[in-house]
Amino acid sequence: MSQDAPTYVMRPIGFVRSPYRDTSEIPKGPGAEHRAEGALALRPELEDGLQDIEGFSHLFVLWVFDRSSGYELVSTVPLDQETPHGVFASRSPRRPNPIGLSVVELLGRDGPRLRVRGVDMLDGTPILDIKPYLSGVPAEKVRRGWVAEAEARRKEKG
Amino acid sequence: MSQDAPTYVMRPIGFVRSPYRDTSEIPKGPGAEHRAEGALALRPELEDGLQDIEGFSHLFVLWVFDRSSGYELVSTVPLDQETPHGVFASRSPRRPNPIGLSVVELLGRDGPRLRVRGVDMLDGTPILDIKPYLSGVPAEKVRRGWVAEAEARRKEKG
Repeated sequence: MSQDAPTYVMRPIGFVRSPYRDTSEIPKGPGAEHRAEGALALRPELEDGLQDIEGFSHLFVLWVFDRSSGYELVSTVPLDQETPHGVFASRSPRRPNPIGLSVVELLGRDGPRLRVRGVDMLDGTPILDIKPYLSGVPAEKVRRGWVAEAEARRKEKG
Repeated sequence: MSQDAPTYVMRPIGFVRSPYRDTSEIPKGPGAEHRAEGALALRPELEDGLQDIEGFSHLFVLWVFDRSSGYELVSTVPLDQETPHGVFASRSPRRPNPIGLSVVELLGRDGPRLRVRGVDMLDGTPILDIKPYLSGVPAEKVRRGWVAEAEARRKEKG
């Protein structure tokens, strides 16, 4: 990438507590369900930023793939090992900016620590931001491209 | 924030083309609808990363609030000017890491340029990442905390 582009320096607002120590333990690919419980442990000095968060059932979490390095513009992913796809059309961790995005269910709060369900991050993952989940695209309007095709192929194969 | 935390340097993968030149032009607050058309103009050298993206109807866009500076842990926002809320319980631009998140509808692609509907970013906004939108939380399971309360209050007032 050209060197004259502006750059932005991000600092973690906290870290994920999760049962997963290795990426191999995280459910991936077709039918993967993320039901694991964990926590979003914020830096104590940021606790005031959580004011009124308890009223939301779900949160977006933006985090860093900190144990991944470099990126590939096109690669194969666990869901479809036959055909490579573009990095922006997949959730590959090897991205130009290694930011992950997860939706978690908020179970409760203890000061600067949020108890959540649905973590798919490694223990110790740096968190960049937390936002309230307000609404989604209606299911009937979502087209899921190669992901839907790969799932259908796998179903046919049984 | 403490200075010994790790930091991550992000570089834009491209820039938003939008009809909005000033934040005052962007629909905000209750009932705001984002129907504006625009484009996500990627750096040409990253075009291969878009392979197979045309199959998805909607995309997550992660971007930088580059015309905002500093952060406030608690502040008032357009939707509720009576009660301040925590930054992680709102979409305030003045965040510890000034990252924005939008869901846009993909209309088409011209090489490294994606035509999209639903931009709520300023023209020239730096893009950090694009991800396929795969599914949402069912509407009946989403609790929207103070946002729902503020909307209800405004409706009562007519």
